[in-house]
Amino acid sequence: MDKNKSNMTALFNPKSVAVIGASGNSEKLGFHVIKSLTKGRFPGTIIPINPNSNKIMGLTTYPSITDYKSRIDLAIVVLPAGLVPQVFNECSDKGIKGIVLITAGFKEIDDPAGADLHEKVAAIANAAVIPVIGPNTFGMINFHADLNASFTPEFSLLKKGTIALVSQSGGISHLLGFVAMRMDIGFSKIVGLGNRLNVDFAEMIDYLMNDPETRVIMLYMEGIEKPRQLMETAKRHNGKKPIIIYKTGNSEKKDQAAKSHTGSMAGRREIYQGAFRQAGILALDGTETLLDAAKALSSSPIPDGPEIAVLSGQAGPGITACDICETRGLKIAGFNDYTQHKINEYLPPLALRTNPVDMGPAWYDSSATKEIVRAVIDDENVNGIILLVMFASANADLIKGLSSFLMNRKQQKPLITCILAPPGVWDEQIETFEKSGALVNYPTPERAAMAMAALWEYKKILDGK
Amino acid sequence: MDKNKSNMTALFNPKSVAVIGASGNSEKLGFHVIKSLTKGRFPGTIIPINPNSNKIMGLTTYPSITDYKSRIDLAIVVLPAGLVPQVFNECSDKGIKGIVLITAGFKEIDDPAGADLHEKVAAIANAAVIPVIGPNTFGMINFHADLNASFTPEFSLLKKGTIALVSQSGGISHLLGFVAMRMDIGFSKIVGLGNRLNVDFAEMIDYLMNDPETRVIMLYMEGIEKPRQLMETAKRHNGKKPIIIYKTGNSEKKDQAAKSHTGSMAGRREIYQGAFRQAGILALDGTETLLDAAKALSSSPIPDGPEIAVLSGQAGPGITACDICETRGLKIAGFNDYTQHKINEYLPPLALRTNPVDMGPAWYDSSATKEIVRAVIDDENVNGIILLVMFASANADLIKGLSSFLMNRKQQKPLITCILAPPGVWDEQIETFEKSGALVNYPTPERAAMAMAALWEYKKILDGK
Repeated sequence: MDKNKSNMTALFNPKSVAVIGASGNSEKLGFHVIKSLTKGRFPGTIIPINPNSNKIMGLTTYPSITDYKSRIDLAIVVLPAGLVPQVFNECSDKGIKGIVLITAGFKEIDDPAGADLHEKVAAIANAAVIPVIGPNTFGMINFHADLNASFTPEFSLLKKGTIALVSQSGGISHLLGFVAMRMDIGFSKIVGLGNRLNVDFAEMIDYLMNDPETRVIMLYMEGIEKPRQLMETAKRHNGKKPIIIYKTGNSEKKDQAAKSHTGSMAGRREIYQGAFRQAGILALDGTETLLDAAKALSSSPIPDGPEIAVLSGQAGPGITACDICETRGLKIAGFNDYTQHKINEYLPPLALRTNPVDMGPAWYDSSATKEIVRAVIDDENVNGIILLVMFASANADLIKGLSSFLMNRKQQKPLITCILAPPGVWDEQIETFEKSGALVNYPTPERAAMAMAALWEYKKILDGK
Repeated sequence: MDKNKSNMTALFNPKSVAVIGASGNSEKLGFHVIKSLTKGRFPGTIIPINPNSNKIMGLTTYPSITDYKSRIDLAIVVLPAGLVPQVFNECSDKGIKGIVLITAGFKEIDDPAGADLHEKVAAIANAAVIPVIGPNTFGMINFHADLNASFTPEFSLLKKGTIALVSQSGGISHLLGFVAMRMDIGFSKIVGLGNRLNVDFAEMIDYLMNDPETRVIMLYMEGIEKPRQLMETAKRHNGKKPIIIYKTGNSEKKDQAAKSHTGSMAGRREIYQGAFRQAGILALDGTETLLDAAKALSSSPIPDGPEIAVLSGQAGPGITACDICETRGLKIAGFNDYTQHKINEYLPPLALRTNPVDMGPAWYDSSATKEIVRAVIDDENVNGIILLVMFASANADLIKGLSSFLMNRKQQKPLITCILAPPGVWDEQIETFEKSGALVNYPTPERAAMAMAALWEYKKILDGK
């Protein structure tokens, strides 16, 4: 393994972490970083660095990293910008393998001194082959290593999962994290790239493609400096793991105190979307749309084709899902004779028995629902199933009735659901289904259908279409 | 008041309710209807009707409504379709004022006997001027009267509020209800129109426009039989209360599905959207978009113009919101000199100080944030404010610091927010803000911006644009 690769690995999996600029004062970011490491139960050594303290939060504190005699793998730097070059030299001398540079005041400020400083520290880091996350970042979290190297201890409330977020915005990283908490979605890593001293989207994609804990790579981007490098990197890994992106900042005058023009924005969006797609990156719009797609891509089989069966406990949600399917490139499958025969056997003529299927009349009989779902899943005309069940007092036991069938089914086709009840009623059963990989559940039929569409889009990327 | 109007009032505000087809067997809908009334704590008299029981759930049960000697205002009918004409005659004789006809098997079935039955019972109801909700409905709920006249007791878990939902689909009514529970949104009424014997969208709009408990009328529609009547009714009330609609069943393939579900032909999206707008109805796509708009319209002032200020605690969410604003017809306002001066006073040059404003550097100083928000709200160039705050450990007290300012402010411009933290952290404070009417909060910046866009669209409707 080359030094760059091994240092990237050490950056995300350090045995010892120094916080340069640690503080016992809760008005300082250095305080919150120490809190993140301790509250996140980092199992390695935490070394606060501060020349004016002996102890911070009960941890022995050193005046400088040189004064700490054992090995340090990762340094988190929260000092003022002017002090950073000296600290980087010390890090280089100490043999530190990775740096998270939270400090702001480099290239992003108007003053050319900021850009100079940026170049200066980049030169030091590059000479020593030290990968740097930042500057001007909230930090990064490697959930599987219990490493919260950020100034937000609350990131450690997130579940461990298989989605890696690489983001250009700290605000959006916090947003996605907090929304994910409410959706019970877990992450492998969250990385705030900040102003990208030497670790950019491309470097992170290279790293994450070989990260066994990451199944889906999720990017948030505002501007892009090296589009070719990103596109070529993504293309090189095409098909290995899904890469999805949310790109904002499409309007030309967003940061000017002036009225903007919608036309140019739409145009720019289209250009980006096309380029991403060519590189095998799936572009999606919106916080929830991005998380919904990541959830499906991280835990569902991919459909072989666009033909979808919509099975609903009630007609309305089925029609709603069909509307989305048809505007997002999916097709409403025609059943084979056996399936249609089975459905006709269990449902009276008054129900919708073709696709979408209104299973309402089978409510009281979960074995009928089960047989319909089974026949549809086994139908070779069907590539994916959207199952929609709204709770009613009269169908309260339906989900329990489907349990043994769903849990023991060999999952080869995506089963995307909106199984919805008042809070607390079906939550546990849905969680069990999701944990077992039996299905992926969404809060509305529209979002279920859009997640299915994302799976199909990824299949087309895999097939080079 | 004419008899029709007074009977509509009695239908939604009965003193006594008979359940014709009540049952003690939990496999029958008549069981769940009784449960809805009792669990919903209906304060009036509940009269189960069943010739084979003396008591159902502890309530004295009568063989027929004729055997009950006092007045009955509302009858909920859950008998098989064939028995309905006779029951309707009895209701007419008894002087019953309103009926909820849950029973299915009328116009929606293939058999022409269904349509005949429909005409027959319609004739009886119309002759007696009895408004009928249904047939083929889950029922209706009047939250302010604690009347759950549906087969889903769980609707009573919803908060009392000022949004009335009138829906052609039981499944979508359940969906919207359960999603609203999670969003803490309250309803005034939920009405499942079913196959609309004599109460259609137009009749409900007429009624709800004069309903003091309803501020926003929310429609879900699949097919429409009498478009002119609906459009004319909406137009007649233009400006009185917002009417928003979610219309599905737009794709050609599903015309068939929507037809058999609701007994009418579904139309094309483009034609309807234009027609709705001309009638002063705001068409929106999606469960959450509909609820988000209803929430804003029911509790926020309307902007006088499209010029929006985006104030964000972090740049990313602000840029995201701006993208949505610009694609949804809003404009990014230019501040006046006083406002810009104030912002420059509190924020360093490294921040985004024009619109959108990145208030990050004012994090530790809630009085700075307060002064910026105050100046922007008072700026005559600004018609509405989107405020975005992602929690971080370092800004944990920010919201508390804004509290007295936000709670005492005279609210003349919409303040739409995405204030987001890990579950439990800021929930209580946000709830207090929302209850006081200080702001309307959303789970993402995109949804906040879309809600603002809905407010502006309604303003254009008010102005006849």
